[in-house]
Amino acid sequence: MAHTVVIFGASGDLTSRKLIPALYLLHQKGRLPKDTRVVGVSRTKFTQDAWRQELTATTQKFAGKEFDAASWQKFASSVFYQPGDIDKLDHFQALSQQLDALEGGPGATRIYYLSTSPALYTAAIANLGASGLADESRGVRRVVIEKPFGTDLRSAQELNRATHQVFAEKQVYRIDHYLGKETVQNMLVLRFANSIFEPLWNRRYIDHVQITVAEEVDVGRRAGYYDHSGVLRDMFQNHLLQLLMITAMEAPARFSADFIRDEKVKVLRTIKQMTGGDFARDTVRGQYEGYRQAEGVPPDSQTATFAALKLHIDNWRWQGVPFYLRSGKAMSCRTSQIVIQYREPPIMMFRDGPRTHMDANKLVIQIQPAEGIQLHFQTKVPDAGMKLRSTDLDFSFAREFTGVMPDSYQRLLLDAMNGDASLFARSDEVEVAWSIIDPILAAWQSPAAPPLETYPIGDWGPASSDAWMKAQGREWFDVCPVLH
Amino acid sequence: MAHTVVIFGASGDLTSRKLIPALYLLHQKGRLPKDTRVVGVSRTKFTQDAWRQELTATTQKFAGKEFDAASWQKFASSVFYQPGDIDKLDHFQALSQQLDALEGGPGATRIYYLSTSPALYTAAIANLGASGLADESRGVRRVVIEKPFGTDLRSAQELNRATHQVFAEKQVYRIDHYLGKETVQNMLVLRFANSIFEPLWNRRYIDHVQITVAEEVDVGRRAGYYDHSGVLRDMFQNHLLQLLMITAMEAPARFSADFIRDEKVKVLRTIKQMTGGDFARDTVRGQYEGYRQAEGVPPDSQTATFAALKLHIDNWRWQGVPFYLRSGKAMSCRTSQIVIQYREPPIMMFRDGPRTHMDANKLVIQIQPAEGIQLHFQTKVPDAGMKLRSTDLDFSFAREFTGVMPDSYQRLLLDAMNGDASLFARSDEVEVAWSIIDPILAAWQSPAAPPLETYPIGDWGPASSDAWMKAQGREWFDVCPVLH
Repeated sequence: MAHTVVIFGASGDLTSRKLIPALYLLHQKGRLPKDTRVVGVSRTKFTQDAWRQELTATTQKFAGKEFDAASWQKFASSVFYQPGDIDKLDHFQALSQQLDALEGGPGATRIYYLSTSPALYTAAIANLGASGLADESRGVRRVVIEKPFGTDLRSAQELNRATHQVFAEKQVYRIDHYLGKETVQNMLVLRFANSIFEPLWNRRYIDHVQITVAEEVDVGRRAGYYDHSGVLRDMFQNHLLQLLMITAMEAPARFSADFIRDEKVKVLRTIKQMTGGDFARDTVRGQYEGYRQAEGVPPDSQTATFAALKLHIDNWRWQGVPFYLRSGKAMSCRTSQIVIQYREPPIMMFRDGPRTHMDANKLVIQIQPAEGIQLHFQTKVPDAGMKLRSTDLDFSFAREFTGVMPDSYQRLLLDAMNGDASLFARSDEVEVAWSIIDPILAAWQSPAAPPLETYPIGDWGPASSDAWMKAQGREWFDVCPVLH
Repeated sequence: MAHTVVIFGASGDLTSRKLIPALYLLHQKGRLPKDTRVVGVSRTKFTQDAWRQELTATTQKFAGKEFDAASWQKFASSVFYQPGDIDKLDHFQALSQQLDALEGGPGATRIYYLSTSPALYTAAIANLGASGLADESRGVRRVVIEKPFGTDLRSAQELNRATHQVFAEKQVYRIDHYLGKETVQNMLVLRFANSIFEPLWNRRYIDHVQITVAEEVDVGRRAGYYDHSGVLRDMFQNHLLQLLMITAMEAPARFSADFIRDEKVKVLRTIKQMTGGDFARDTVRGQYEGYRQAEGVPPDSQTATFAALKLHIDNWRWQGVPFYLRSGKAMSCRTSQIVIQYREPPIMMFRDGPRTHMDANKLVIQIQPAEGIQLHFQTKVPDAGMKLRSTDLDFSFAREFTGVMPDSYQRLLLDAMNGDASLFARSDEVEVAWSIIDPILAAWQSPAAPPLETYPIGDWGPASSDAWMKAQGREWFDVCPVLH
């Protein structure tokens, strides 16, 4: 069956860096549906050949050593270009005719990938509707929407409303590329294809959970945009809450899109809303030194480049188990990891020195870049009486599996083409996520805010973040991953 | 305080291979009590110098690269020899005088190590008593008894009775060198210094347990002795049951000798006695091909060189969880390992091919020679949809800790000198162990016996052993360890 992927925003960065390389590598591996074509749309007046030529260069760069000239030539021959303006209905009508011509008949499945500026999403969706491109009477039509999906609850609701005027929810695929990561999907496998983790995955055995998404880079050339966004919008509303949902959700009845998303949304809905003094007590905000000197940033910017949140999931499984989320730019190293900190054993039978929380077991799930799992446990130091030491059981994807870890977009594009929405955000999910972040954003503009502390570039956030944990008798797992 | 280790059977193999190297290495590491001497006793008419010279050669060989001439010279100067006959009371009286002279006053702690032929234990103990050497009025006196401790329940009871006529139980240290192994002690640490293993350590989560002690060597020059012993006496009554006890015991209230041994004995006492058809159904016996041609073995020998037992621990924790024990000579490789086979997850959410028991989680504890732990679990195969694969979280002592793993005898000798009997067998423990083995030994001489199957040298026992497991819907973990 014919498939067409239409990319709006074809001249943009995401298209050349991620989408085209992902589609090309899927083609190379023989995973694309047989009769698949890609149509790029943007305002730029490319000729078909000019775009193909440009993509040859960028794909060679971004597909890296997996690039192969012969298979690329084959793939490129089914890549087309159509200049068009998102605001102009007649351009959509022209596109519609071109798509019909390329597909040579009805029945093709079409994916409309919105990779434009988010400001254009509403217009693009409206024109897809008005031009009949969303109509499914002649084939399946889906729309993939890139993040950010709104900038707060209200804008997300508006975007959902506009989307649903044209597309049914089952046609909508909201991308969060974190869900396409192998290690994030593996969290579900770890939890639900094994019998040994789930029985301990609750308040009886777990003291707390830490979710860290640390970036080593600073805001760079995105400073102007970033200053309006900040770390909560940029990272928490999407990636960190996604990791939290995957970690905390109940077992879905089946591994299918709505079963999974029902369980995920349930987690978000049970997160206790912060009020009053909560914001000062349960949030930490930071800004790296020098941020205000970046081009496009006001010299008195109050934008947080680091945040740590303590969230409570108010349900049977997680009552009393805090989830600590933190993320920031210009931190010690690039690492995304989930730490399950287990409770201490009920008694300490082997007395040899003082014990701290650090000695209790922990499961460290390395999302990236050192994809793997470590289970920290106590072992006997050989030839030293009953002296114990913390060590770990280790698993590394790189050691176990040869081959390159595929980029998230490969999996997600293929799922969208195959109609599997398991790894995409549903409308309610996005809105509930904003309803958690919105009050914090508001509080941080008010006297209820914790102080905005600065931190040196290359640190784990402001000193207050460590102090905050210590005051709670806990400690961040500040370990840069070892790449194998 | 002065310590004296008196070794009876000083000219024997164990003394030169294990005891002297262990004592020397303890000395080298500065762990022996300050004023410690070693006195060897045997019938051989060594001079003191001749014995020291012989030990210099053997220790150099058996201590290997840890041997150091200077520290050996220092240690050797406190090694003495006293010719003596176990049967002759006056030789014990002479020994007593020599010990007094060497110790230069009362108060020394003495360890009498019985490393003679087991046939001489009763005589040695009686003469230790008659000569006043067991009397504690002038210092602590302990006796260490090497295995085998009896050849059946009756002989073990007799030996215990004879021992208790001279020594109180707290003076008696019955050695099973398996308990001195770092990895066996680490089992207790794994279970009781971590919070994540114990909650799953029961019938609700564990399908069965496998304990394998495989030897690659055949009976060699011990054939004559071995034919009267067989694998049940040689390996099961001691090592395999010890591993079973350590695996199955409840948490002791404290890490001290009697608390630990109380819990161990409780396990043995709750093992369901086999009767009637149990022997044919729950035991497998084998003999390797060519065993009957070994010198000293009758051509129609019925001695088992391989056995597998299915034992049931009839208590709250283990009801319905079989413990499979197997051991043999001339097997595929040398390996001692404990496999905790967990149950399958309640539902299989990710359907990709058939599942077998082998896919369920297992914890593999490598006792020797590849000391370590592997936790087998399911993970997602990257870039392959939701295909899963069994892989493992791995921990290796050799990778984690530098330095040689100390021989069991170092720990056990030092514990005996320090009066810590935690890692020694108590009289009731030994007797209950025999009471489990005796009925099987008897049944194997009767029509209730399963057939004695032969197996090729270098195999995992007879084919019937695999078939037996398969018929129960299970599978042996036949994996030779990888040495790091």
